Amino acid sequence: MQSAPAIQKLLDELERLPGIGPKSAQRVAYHILNSDRDDAIRLAQAIEEVKDTVRFCSQCFNYAEGELCEICASVRRDASVICVVSEPRDIPPIERTGVFSGVYHVLGGALSPMEGIGPDELKIKELMSRLVDDSVQEVVIATNPNVEGETTATYLARLIKPLGILVTRPASGLPVGGDLEFADEITLGRAMEARREL
Amino acid sequence: MQSAPAIQKLLDELERLPGIGPKSAQRVAYHILNSDRDDAIRLAQAIEEVKDTVRFCSQCFNYAEGELCEICASVRRDASVICVVSEPRDIPPIERTGVFSGVYHVLGGALSPMEGIGPDELKIKELMSRLVDDSVQEVVIATNPNVEGETTATYLARLIKPLGILVTRPASGLPVGGDLEFADEITLGRAMEARREL
Repeated sequence: MQSAPAIQKLLDELERLPGIGPKSAQRVAYHILNSDRDDAIRLAQAIEEVKDTVRFCSQCFNYAEGELCEICASVRRDASVICVVSEPRDIPPIERTGVFSGVYHVLGGALSPMEGIGPDELKIKELMSRLVDDSVQEVVIATNPNVEGETTATYLARLIKPLGILVTRPASGLPVGGDLEFADEITLGRAMEARREL
Repeated sequence: MQSAPAIQKLLDELERLPGIGPKSAQRVAYHILNSDRDDAIRLAQAIEEVKDTVRFCSQCFNYAEGELCEICASVRRDASVICVVSEPRDIPPIERTGVFSGVYHVLGGALSPMEGIGPDELKIKELMSRLVDDSVQEVVIATNPNVEGETTATYLARLIKPLGILVTRPASGLPVGGDLEFADEITLGRAMEARREL
């Protein structure tokens, strides 16, 4: 009513974003209205570009712009250690700790009988097929330290250990019940370094 | 480093928005990555559309899609009462109170000798030229209840009163030193209704 239709449309779209309520949406909308046209267009184009160019890495299922993600494609990464995470968003916090030089595998979730997510809904088959050649020495299972994450870790440990591969999990120290995504770098770095065998 | 370039670019653009820190930017970026392409494109297009279609109302300097904003163009509004605000973002909270049926005038700021903002930097000349015909009965000065806003209100009252026009200001009750933009509807509604002559 009080806003021009184009402004109302922008407000509606902004309010659909996570963590953005009506007041944040309004602040952001007025910021966009007040900013240089070039700045606003760069944001719009960044959104479109990310949807046009980003897909899943064919090896680890992280986000990737090519066939492989930057980590899988890098010759500097130690392919003999695979860190298993639930979601792509769990990778940046581990990368920021600087203590992990291996590669990743993104499950796309965690086991949850309550939500009907069983092994077939996750990229577990794809993980197992990465383990058939002898080059993998260790699998670090960095699923979230909550019920689903622990269940998933236990399930994977039982599958992988018989292959003679070391299976580890970041040390506790992560706040139990919390999300790995929001852990601070030092806590998470120490937890990664002190990871223990399952 | 850990993100694909397109994702990093999006994160950079999101972090430029007000109230969006690195963690919020990451949440929003992953939301966009996970959302339907159509949803993401709608957001991008809403941003572009707002920059392409929104300009300033030639009468009141609110945001507008045509020559006049929706309020100035409406026949239902009482053009004999003009509410003066600092910024376009101050209009929606007043509209939401539902107690004001007049029109607006956006100054584009407030007087601030500290920041070098004098009368010539604001749309004061344009306000005065709206008052020359006899139709305007009242000017409500709803600048923010802080130093700059009060200074501006006092300055405008001195200019306008000699024209024989009633000059009012929303009643105090607004938290002093705060921003009108963030006032709750009831407080602001009562303050508007109990506005007093300056």
